[in-house]
Amino acid sequence: MSDGERVEKETGRVEAFSDGVFAIAITLLILEIKVPHEAGHELWRRLLDQWPSYFAFVTSFATIGIMWINHHRMFTLIHRVDPMLMILNGVLMLGMTFVPYPTAVVAQYLGHDGATAAAVFLAITYVLIAIAFNLLWRYSASAQRKPRLLRVPPDDPAALAITRSYRLGPLLYLVTLLVAFWDARVSIGLNLALAVYWAKPPRQEG
Amino acid sequence: MSDGERVEKETGRVEAFSDGVFAIAITLLILEIKVPHEAGHELWRRLLDQWPSYFAFVTSFATIGIMWINHHRMFTLIHRVDPMLMILNGVLMLGMTFVPYPTAVVAQYLGHDGATAAAVFLAITYVLIAIAFNLLWRYSASAQRKPRLLRVPPDDPAALAITRSYRLGPLLYLVTLLVAFWDARVSIGLNLALAVYWAKPPRQEG
Amino acid sequence: MSDGERVEKETGRVEAFSDGVFAIAITLLILEIKVPHEAGHELWRRLLDQWPSYFAFVTSFATIGIMWINHHRMFTLIHRVDPMLMILNGVLMLGMTFVPYPTAVVAQYLGHDGATAAAVFLAITYVLIAIAFNLLWRYSASAQRKPRLLRVPPDDPAALAITRSYRLGPLLYLVTLLVAFWDARVSIGLNLALAVYWAKPPRQEG
Amino acid sequence: MSDGERVEKETGRVEAFSDGVFAIAITLLILEIKVPHEAGHELWRRLLDQWPSYFAFVTSFATIGIMWINHHRMFTLIHRVDPMLMILNGVLMLGMTFVPYPTAVVAQYLGHDGATAAAVFLAITYVLIAIAFNLLWRYSASAQRKPRLLRVPPDDPAALAITRSYRLGPLLYLVTLLVAFWDARVSIGLNLALAVYWAKPPRQEG
Repeated sequence: MSDGERVEKETGRVEAFSDGVFAIAITLLILEIKVPHEAGHELWRRLLDQWPSYFAFVTSFATIGIMWINHHRMFTLIHRVDPMLMILNGVLMLGMTFVPYPTAVVAQYLGHDGATAAAVFLAITYVLIAIAFNLLWRYSASAQRKPRLLRVPPDDPAALAITRSYRLGPLLYLVTLLVAFWDARVSIGLNLALAVYWAKPPRQEG
Repeated sequence: MSDGERVEKETGRVEAFSDGVFAIAITLLILEIKVPHEAGHELWRRLLDQWPSYFAFVTSFATIGIMWINHHRMFTLIHRVDPMLMILNGVLMLGMTFVPYPTAVVAQYLGHDGATAAAVFLAITYVLIAIAFNLLWRYSASAQRKPRLLRVPPDDPAALAITRSYRLGPLLYLVTLLVAFWDARVSIGLNLALAVYWAKPPRQEG
Repeated sequence: MSDGERVEKETGRVEAFSDGVFAIAITLLILEIKVPHEAGHELWRRLLDQWPSYFAFVTSFATIGIMWINHHRMFTLIHRVDPMLMILNGVLMLGMTFVPYPTAVVAQYLGHDGATAAAVFLAITYVLIAIAFNLLWRYSASAQRKPRLLRVPPDDPAALAITRSYRLGPLLYLVTLLVAFWDARVSIGLNLALAVYWAKPPRQEG
Repeated sequence: MSDGERVEKETGRVEAFSDGVFAIAITLLILEIKVPHEAGHELWRRLLDQWPSYFAFVTSFATIGIMWINHHRMFTLIHRVDPMLMILNGVLMLGMTFVPYPTAVVAQYLGHDGATAAAVFLAITYVLIAIAFNLLWRYSASAQRKPRLLRVPPDDPAALAITRSYRLGPLLYLVTLLVAFWDARVSIGLNLALAVYWAKPPRQEG
């Protein structure tokens, strides 16, 4: 194996590990929806009454999914990993594996007392994840780093487009956090809308 | 890495992520079967009384398994992914990760009041997944898309065979849905039979 | 991609999917051990009292692990997959994902009434998995199959060594099943011993 | 496939399997945090009262994450696997999949009677994992083994740096074990500090 191949292999293993964590976190979400007990002929109504669980499930699924797409996009540009990048990626994964918990809290408390706290808890999680995304990207794209971690120069249009696109993340999730104090359902709905918004690839200027 | 290699790598990562989700969803099914409490010397009978759980487990295992094989078949023809394809694939994965929940509902209510609602709930899930499969495939195989996402022309016999084969999916699962109103067990049995039916590769005409 | 590369890629995806199922099933085993409630200063004793859970955990971990190694060994010889092989592999994976359930039953009933039923239930699962292993291997190694699924002729010493080694599997697990009627603990211990026994690579004669 | 490619492929499959186990174990940790029941307007306080769960979650996440990085580092030097290495790697994975259980015990008992037993239980798990790491590495790096399992000679500076770095592991976790008898919280905090300490790559002398 040449040195170049070894570098690609290491990066590939970080990607594969992250993909595993994304795939598992997104699939575990369903475990938080509990089968109604002894519903009998009322099962239909009881399944419909679980709409907060479905809403929380779809929102967190979409959010983790879009974050996976963005992680993927980032790693089409990153071709070398170093210990600090692995730690920052680990912090991002820590946030990602935490998501099923606030999602379960929202599923249980949306539509009941405590809905505000639950929606705020979820929004805080998303704000922190958005910050972790920025830290990871900025470290990778830093012009000072030698050898360069990106396969393109830091002023490459694709790299700049990602920088611009991610900068807004923490602010937008901060808005959903503030909205949660006013209406928990609207806040969750905004999280879902943001996931759809981030799905489009970052626009390259010029 | 050449551009061609990068395209293959991106497609490979979507496949790997999807494989992860399929593998996890199929393995989580078992968590929905609960150990009988304090059965003592009656453990044998109690384990046998759980037949609806085993029946639901095997049906959903076979269905997810066959869907994995079909996803795999589709991606032997897809060699390029774009953002819309990733979103459509994400919708399919959403359906796939949801399967353990209606399966758990069936496991708990089959043979009791609520069995009809449970079987209808599972069948609706399968109808929606079959529609998602068709959307993903039709988008990928569309003749208008430039650059082409398939590695073969849209009128390639292998591509046409998949189109014909998938078209029936939503209709057949709609039949199992209607049957569920008449007999929940027969409906689940038909789902299992369909999984076996889809296992055979699509026939190429001429 | 040449035809040879496509064949390798398809086989690789079956291996990767199976590896995923093995890895998830082996990691889910731990979820079946439950934290003692309100143990207070007695926590030490309560953790020690859970020995049947640890025993069942280690036995099923070793069994799934050794089965993974054997699956891996088989696929160093298989270089082409066809639909029937994927179905037989699916049946094997069905057995593998089922293992956490009888393991949980053993964990809960070993040392109590119902221990015999629990150990028999686990042994039946292992017998069926051992049969599925033989079906998968014999189909792959069959001399009639064209094109050949193995990368070596069916009378290759490595292939014959696997055939000989697997033939004993169902019989040996049948013995642990019979022993379970006499003493559940000895039966589980034999399962653990068998896992260690299968770890050694099959001997090639001559 | 040449013999060299086959050797690389086998090693790759062991790495991929281990990566799967690491990724799943690290993601399952969150399932051990339970949503507070019927908290109503007190939800905020109840979420904050769960600090031992978050503390245990972050500590075990960091520990498994750093162990993944070290496993990854080890396998940049290992290019050939043999049956014994697979068994030693399996023992390491056994320890890794066990981690969510003592973590759940700590989450539930930290700050209550039984905290000492819980912290000791977690520390014992880490001591055993650190020993398994040393066994796996020493076996791989042994100068007697023919053919060599490392891609470098055993006296390569990178290999020697790993040997020196791992030697301390069991001792350091033994210290956290002893500290647990004095103060459970400090012991968990030391585990977290150790994870950060192991994140830095082993220093190469000279």
